[in-house]
Amino acid sequence: MENLDEKIEVHFEKLKESLANENINAFRTNFLDMHPYDQAEFFIEIEPSDRMLIYSYLSPEELAAMMEHIELEDIQPFFVEMDLNYASMVLGEMATDDAVDILNEMDKDKVVSYLTIMDEEEADEIKDLLHYEEKTAGSIMTTEFISVNKTQTVKETMVQLKKEGPDAETIYYLYVVDEEKKLVGVLSLRDLIISDDDVKIAELLNENVFYVSVAEDQEEVAQIMRDYDFLAVPVVDFQKHLLGIITVDDILDVIDEEASEDYSLLAGISDVDRPDINPLTAAKKRLPWLIILLFLGLLTASLIGQFEETLSKVTILSIFIPLIAGMAGNTGTQALAVAVRGLATGEYETDGKFKLILREAGTGLITGTVCGLIITIVIFLWQQNLYLGILVGLSIMATLIIATLAGSLIPLLMHRMNIDPAVASGPFITTINDIISVLIYFGLATTFMGLLL
Amino acid sequence: MENLDEKIEVHFEKLKESLANENINAFRTNFLDMHPYDQAEFFIEIEPSDRMLIYSYLSPEELAAMMEHIELEDIQPFFVEMDLNYASMVLGEMATDDAVDILNEMDKDKVVSYLTIMDEEEADEIKDLLHYEEKTAGSIMTTEFISVNKTQTVKETMVQLKKEGPDAETIYYLYVVDEEKKLVGVLSLRDLIISDDDVKIAELLNENVFYVSVAEDQEEVAQIMRDYDFLAVPVVDFQKHLLGIITVDDILDVIDEEASEDYSLLAGISDVDRPDINPLTAAKKRLPWLIILLFLGLLTASLIGQFEETLSKVTILSIFIPLIAGMAGNTGTQALAVAVRGLATGEYETDGKFKLILREAGTGLITGTVCGLIITIVIFLWQQNLYLGILVGLSIMATLIIATLAGSLIPLLMHRMNIDPAVASGPFITTINDIISVLIYFGLATTFMGLLL
Repeated sequence: MENLDEKIEVHFEKLKESLANENINAFRTNFLDMHPYDQAEFFIEIEPSDRMLIYSYLSPEELAAMMEHIELEDIQPFFVEMDLNYASMVLGEMATDDAVDILNEMDKDKVVSYLTIMDEEEADEIKDLLHYEEKTAGSIMTTEFISVNKTQTVKETMVQLKKEGPDAETIYYLYVVDEEKKLVGVLSLRDLIISDDDVKIAELLNENVFYVSVAEDQEEVAQIMRDYDFLAVPVVDFQKHLLGIITVDDILDVIDEEASEDYSLLAGISDVDRPDINPLTAAKKRLPWLIILLFLGLLTASLIGQFEETLSKVTILSIFIPLIAGMAGNTGTQALAVAVRGLATGEYETDGKFKLILREAGTGLITGTVCGLIITIVIFLWQQNLYLGILVGLSIMATLIIATLAGSLIPLLMHRMNIDPAVASGPFITTINDIISVLIYFGLATTFMGLLL
Repeated sequence: MENLDEKIEVHFEKLKESLANENINAFRTNFLDMHPYDQAEFFIEIEPSDRMLIYSYLSPEELAAMMEHIELEDIQPFFVEMDLNYASMVLGEMATDDAVDILNEMDKDKVVSYLTIMDEEEADEIKDLLHYEEKTAGSIMTTEFISVNKTQTVKETMVQLKKEGPDAETIYYLYVVDEEKKLVGVLSLRDLIISDDDVKIAELLNENVFYVSVAEDQEEVAQIMRDYDFLAVPVVDFQKHLLGIITVDDILDVIDEEASEDYSLLAGISDVDRPDINPLTAAKKRLPWLIILLFLGLLTASLIGQFEETLSKVTILSIFIPLIAGMAGNTGTQALAVAVRGLATGEYETDGKFKLILREAGTGLITGTVCGLIITIVIFLWQQNLYLGILVGLSIMATLIIATLAGSLIPLLMHRMNIDPAVASGPFITTINDIISVLIYFGLATTFMGLLL
């Protein structure tokens, strides 16, 4: 991307200069020449006073194009610092789905005042979308799509495209609806382009149109679009009325978001992808997990405390505690990751779950036996104590089997209880497995104490 | 997606019936009526003998459309079971980038025989792409794009589209090249559609065209396409000759692949997303990690063994081992996840790294102090032993600071050494931190032994 970086640097310098000189023409020429994403990068890094100048230099429409490229989490302060009228107009000019995302994060009062000032038609479209629940198809769809009628010709449709094209989110799919606005088919711009002018839409349309329900989970929609390589998918209500479309650029964001959510939870940290501005905000995100784990750790300690007599007689037992607890944690995390990903991709429908548990039991048995045997031999050679080797080996074996099962059963149970299984985060499973492993180890040691002394 | 599932079930039943009756016409009608993704789903689940029938029922072109929707990891056996001539023709009819991906996984001998039989023009295109290194822009690009000349009119270009459109990977972007095939601009189909017939391409093209180098990392390309909301991006060599394009459907796969790689490594498991067919294959993927960790765990055990004297005098020390080691592991994983994601998204360029380390040191100090204080108070109340409380509290504090730093420093060092930082997997960092924490804890305990007795 060398060519990009250089060009952008030059542009940024020029822009800063023209803002310093309050040279509106030079600024507009250079600014509007950039891609909206780069405009946004520039906009974010400058001083508030310079941003105020920009609000007076650019039309709401020009600013709206740039705003669509600012991350949702960072955008609110900019609207707050704008004049209320100007802010309403910017929101009105943005793609409806993006405007809705922004308003969804704001106070109700604020939203009402924006919508009151805004152009009525735009405000109505936004109000319709504000209802939809987060993370559903409805919440990420846009209402700026092109719909056509079966009876139109290719030529008529091209004329329509020239008119409606500039405002539509995509013109690469045209949706065919009947008189009641019910979806009856789809047509790609590609099909249109390669057809002759007087062909009727009825001859070109594909009635086998894929659609998603407005209440569908956004992750499901992403899966479909990835599998079928769609650039857009129509969204309908229960009577199959066409409500909106979801485009692939929104899906890229969904995939990114869901993946980083799973990743964050495996790491035991809320929201790994928001940049941490300072140590305090970073600590705030991590402390809740750490404190919960601290108390779970104290529970483990008090459980080991029950075996103090065993420990005081055979001190050497304690040196293997981190080994056994660590192995339990690791194997549990592996099983967890497999189960969480499998649930996310819909791999385990109905009977698949029982299969998963069986397979994990088998996997635990194999890994447990292998690791148990290795450790028995190593400890026997190292400590010259066969019984100790067998004790640790057996503990590792039992631990690995149970920890593997726990790692897959817990997310499955959470899934059944309609809790996102990814919430069964890595550290949580690890700590549960710590406790199980310590109980197995000291339980066995106490039972067979005679052999160890 | 209810409508999908039902339709597909009905189709699958009909298809199986027509295969059983060897009714070629019924099969073709129903099969070709489905989306290629669904065709692939059907194809994967049937018996080899039924697949043999399909190879004789469908043209190479028809089969190729379906093959593009089969996961790369699963596709090879199908080509092996086909007749060599038929297989070559299928590969020739597939999108060049997909055919190259498949050939890249095959033996050299096999590749040579396919390419020898194949149509020469196709074979040449494939040979050109086979050179590119894995995970670069070159390896995921396709050569089936539409390039136009500055001097053409809109009308001439539409005629060209009607001709070349059916074979192109996308017709939504047209790339403008000069006489030497160097990229000079881009034009979206949208711009073309909304312009009048006699306008020249020169008036419409955007010279500010974004392009990527053929050697660019695929993750960088994905980032660019996501940021700029591109549906396709052109790929050039060092002289800016246009070599190919990368489309958004390939980028969806890249994002998915990279995210699941990071996730797998955090969980300490190779390739979490390939379905595990049986416990043996699952165990094979997990055992390498587990065995490495087993030996690291033994190292921890032998280190604790050095403090056996301390342990035998103050048995109670051992009950806090899992707590301290666990906290070290958890906090290290958190820091690791933040650093790995930050490096993946290019957040820490040059000076950002030093900032990250400073911030993590600060974060460790805050979380360490908070957790250390809590544990001191709890242990004092529980065990009525202030010195023990202070010892464990201080250990937790020191451990959290060092483990947080280790969690961020290790991936940064690996990044500098050009190793993918995600390889510093969760369990690896956890075990390193286990060792550090145990040394701190017993070091402090041995030093201040007098106070504990």
